[in-house]
Amino acid sequence: MTDEHTGADLRAPRDIGRLLLRCADRPGLVAAVSTFLAEAGANIISLDQHSTQQMHGTFMQRTIFHLSGLSAARDTLERDFTARVADPFGMDFRLTEAATPKRVAIMASKEDHCLLDLLWRNRRGDLDMSVVMVIANHPDLADKVRPFGVPFIHVPARRDIREEAEQRQLDLLRGNVDLVVLARYMQILTPDFIDGVGCPLINIHHSFLPAFIGASPYRRARERGVKLVGATAHYVTDDLDEGPIIEQDVVRVDHRHSVEDLVRLGTDVERAVLSRAVLWHCEDRVIRFGNQTICL
Amino acid sequence: MTDEHTGADLRAPRDIGRLLLRCADRPGLVAAVSTFLAEAGANIISLDQHSTQQMHGTFMQRTIFHLSGLSAARDTLERDFTARVADPFGMDFRLTEAATPKRVAIMASKEDHCLLDLLWRNRRGDLDMSVVMVIANHPDLADKVRPFGVPFIHVPARRDIREEAEQRQLDLLRGNVDLVVLARYMQILTPDFIDGVGCPLINIHHSFLPAFIGASPYRRARERGVKLVGATAHYVTDDLDEGPIIEQDVVRVDHRHSVEDLVRLGTDVERAVLSRAVLWHCEDRVIRFGNQTICL
Amino acid sequence: MTDEHTGADLRAPRDIGRLLLRCADRPGLVAAVSTFLAEAGANIISLDQHSTQQMHGTFMQRTIFHLSGLSAARDTLERDFTARVADPFGMDFRLTEAATPKRVAIMASKEDHCLLDLLWRNRRGDLDMSVVMVIANHPDLADKVRPFGVPFIHVPARRDIREEAEQRQLDLLRGNVDLVVLARYMQILTPDFIDGVGCPLINIHHSFLPAFIGASPYRRARERGVKLVGATAHYVTDDLDEGPIIEQDVVRVDHRHSVEDLVRLGTDVERAVLSRAVLWHCEDRVIRFGNQTICL
Amino acid sequence: MTDEHTGADLRAPRDIGRLLLRCADRPGLVAAVSTFLAEAGANIISLDQHSTQQMHGTFMQRTIFHLSGLSAARDTLERDFTARVADPFGMDFRLTEAATPKRVAIMASKEDHCLLDLLWRNRRGDLDMSVVMVIANHPDLADKVRPFGVPFIHVPARRDIREEAEQRQLDLLRGNVDLVVLARYMQILTPDFIDGVGCPLINIHHSFLPAFIGASPYRRARERGVKLVGATAHYVTDDLDEGPIIEQDVVRVDHRHSVEDLVRLGTDVERAVLSRAVLWHCEDRVIRFGNQTICL
Repeated sequence: MTDEHTGADLRAPRDIGRLLLRCADRPGLVAAVSTFLAEAGANIISLDQHSTQQMHGTFMQRTIFHLSGLSAARDTLERDFTARVADPFGMDFRLTEAATPKRVAIMASKEDHCLLDLLWRNRRGDLDMSVVMVIANHPDLADKVRPFGVPFIHVPARRDIREEAEQRQLDLLRGNVDLVVLARYMQILTPDFIDGVGCPLINIHHSFLPAFIGASPYRRARERGVKLVGATAHYVTDDLDEGPIIEQDVVRVDHRHSVEDLVRLGTDVERAVLSRAVLWHCEDRVIRFGNQTICL
Repeated sequence: MTDEHTGADLRAPRDIGRLLLRCADRPGLVAAVSTFLAEAGANIISLDQHSTQQMHGTFMQRTIFHLSGLSAARDTLERDFTARVADPFGMDFRLTEAATPKRVAIMASKEDHCLLDLLWRNRRGDLDMSVVMVIANHPDLADKVRPFGVPFIHVPARRDIREEAEQRQLDLLRGNVDLVVLARYMQILTPDFIDGVGCPLINIHHSFLPAFIGASPYRRARERGVKLVGATAHYVTDDLDEGPIIEQDVVRVDHRHSVEDLVRLGTDVERAVLSRAVLWHCEDRVIRFGNQTICL
Repeated sequence: MTDEHTGADLRAPRDIGRLLLRCADRPGLVAAVSTFLAEAGANIISLDQHSTQQMHGTFMQRTIFHLSGLSAARDTLERDFTARVADPFGMDFRLTEAATPKRVAIMASKEDHCLLDLLWRNRRGDLDMSVVMVIANHPDLADKVRPFGVPFIHVPARRDIREEAEQRQLDLLRGNVDLVVLARYMQILTPDFIDGVGCPLINIHHSFLPAFIGASPYRRARERGVKLVGATAHYVTDDLDEGPIIEQDVVRVDHRHSVEDLVRLGTDVERAVLSRAVLWHCEDRVIRFGNQTICL
Repeated sequence: MTDEHTGADLRAPRDIGRLLLRCADRPGLVAAVSTFLAEAGANIISLDQHSTQQMHGTFMQRTIFHLSGLSAARDTLERDFTARVADPFGMDFRLTEAATPKRVAIMASKEDHCLLDLLWRNRRGDLDMSVVMVIANHPDLADKVRPFGVPFIHVPARRDIREEAEQRQLDLLRGNVDLVVLARYMQILTPDFIDGVGCPLINIHHSFLPAFIGASPYRRARERGVKLVGATAHYVTDDLDEGPIIEQDVVRVDHRHSVEDLVRLGTDVERAVLSRAVLWHCEDRVIRFGNQTICL
């Protein structure tokens, strides 16, 4: 991936753009977008698209392209695309630069497995994000977070102080982050917070939704005698545990496993599922459509 | 597995016995049972046991043993075990001979994948059972079943003729089978039938219970946007879809899969899960405990 | 998938085309192809592409499109595409109609699991192929194949009559089939046969290549104490067991499994892996690139 | 798991013993051992056994038992068992107390994923071990290890200073540890070291052995076009990459993954596989038999 002559890393993200779009399906969409990009001098690196049905459905496309000098050309590119493609076809679209990682806040409580796994992976360069803060409603995890060079902010939150806690959290988050990840954050968030934070939130639910919605899923899974337990990463909406699912996975269990064993085995699934969901979101792979997600 | 000198197949099941037992846990159980078997001249081939909790729980054990002349000695062995072990320890137990495969009836409707997979595996010798009849409420599958040398009996069944249909089915089954497998049999069975048939019934539910209980699980899974669909084999109880789970598995799906695709992918999971559950049952591996199963 | 007004099945494949292409990567490829299709009145249903490296690599694309009257227009379409796109860009391409399933011959010996699984799936409509004959070097499977309405042809083959056996096989196959599937066919095929048959061959190797290349992989897997055994479907080349891999999968095993158990568990993986490879090939998803495959 | 009356944790390991044994198979073994334990006042919590063949094989058994006052009674128990059971039956055996975790050294180089995963799981209490030191041949990981409260010892090691490096390592390890874990330690260890260290060593090989034995397995996996990459944890013997396999797993990959992607995906499998192998070893579940392992 290194140019033989110049030694320049061709995968350097500074000239890599991502174009996500969604519109009513009709003939000529791929041609219009790809012709626009070709005429702008961009080379398509990958292109994935999906139509929700064969005819008269919704069309979604994710295009990764290389364009020398993308950063300087971006405003013009965006304006031209709006005029020549997006407006004529009635498209929603989003243009991002791979060189600009998402700014992410992680919210946690006392459990460390999802939080530390995200921080580790990010320190290794395996997630495409910049963690700008960790907000926790307990002080316990401070010593585990700070060695990663990430600010740890303790905002006490309980049912009886929910309003002021959420206000403090909003003051910290609003305008500063592109994504909030709830890494086993054990407080309910109000619709006011979800609407007010101004960016998507991803939650990890420690069960295979829609089985065992709500509290204590591992205990209930054991009582029901299921042979697999799982975890679900989803966008947060006002309907608790009902938001669009991004990723799920399961692990095999049997009668020898106590509830404590299920919790332990579950932590591995939870951190794997959450990290995949966060990675895909940060790579602009996930498009919401109704209460579902399309992961391109 | 062939004796070097005599050429006899040492795995021939005629001298292999299986002893399943269940009782309140207390010290000395394993010793009592294994001492009894040793004194009877039996060699333990495998022994699996489980206690539902560390103390004061329920103890379950499955022992496979080799005893020359088992068949002739069986009545004596059973009587002696009752007197010397089972009664003193308050045990339920069941002694079976591996040489006597379970007599099994399979009930089906129009879909062939679970039915044919069971018949095919059994013909290869991979399931430890004797299929004595297939009962179907539609005639469609007759030509696919009869080449396996198994009687195909068409008993029309619909909601409006349920009582007489179940009576005909009971006449066929009662006393003739040790297990009934519902291989995508699409009629509801009444508690009277379930009680009256006199043997366990295993059903395959085409979803990952307890998610999507009831009808059309693949359509509902697609609407919910789940990333995995599954199947569940369980014993049939009066509570539809709530019986003890024997086995479950899942397959990964995504937004590109239509409901028809999910159905198609689901057939693979259904037949795999059902065949495992039937195998384990026929090998006397499954012990029911409350609404759960222990698969030893 | 049914038009609300006319009741016509919109998924009827008669107007669905598949365009596969491969060329040196350069800007403007997606635009050129999609513009051509749009101008021809075709609607792109799905488009998948891959470049082997970011710049100066090989570009591959699979496009599924809908074009009313495809069958009648096909020759013109192919000629125009050659002139306007393929020749200018130096492309290899292949245009197929979804309505014309691949003509497939299956070669087998005595084992039935892969063969019957393919025939079952195809009878259900889950594979996109027409099985025109089964050729076996043993007569044993005739009664299992003929109920599917497929000709079963017994061509004895052994090392000492290889030349004449292959000649008879070539007489049957050449010009009559688009694909040959080796469903546990236990004879070596010579390079002359592979070159002469005039179409691709897919083989199932009963191990996770490149581990346990060659004979008796399950026995050797057991001796090595591996914890997973697998199967590999690959295109056949002159280098035995070294052709491009299409699909692989594994199943977990442990010390309790005898070689016979591994063989039994392996059959499930073999038939699953082979059926996926055949499906993908028949849907024109698999592009060969060097000794690898790209499955779009 | 808490006694209702006393509040004492019944799972406290101080009275839990583990008895592992191996001998030539013969009738009466289970009875002899379980009778001995029952007469000693011990209650069997779980018992797993395996015979390498149905008759005349090697018998292995792992028994977990509860005995009040185990620690004080242990020497007597061991002596009595030797006299009354082990010697008469020609058994090898090992008696351990669950309350005495294995003393473990971890050896690493520059990569942190396996090392940190082990340290983190152990801090959570999910591994049954005491990490007494980390030895690394590079200083890079010191800051990541020391927050776990574990000594980090830098012992430079290269091919040209192998002898003195191994001597320093032996001085640190010998007599101080019950297990050495090679967590991506990138130096070859000599047979002298392996013999001299006086305890088992577990290594993680970053491929699915026996495929891609040796160096650069991910690069070679990509070149061969495999559809799964894996990892293998094994005991270290003088034959590099040929020791008894403890655990293996795989992850699905495809043509879109670069070698860097395979490395990244591989880290997840490596840390999962290694942690399971270490856990099983520390719980005394793994018995070596020839070049294989039995995991009871």
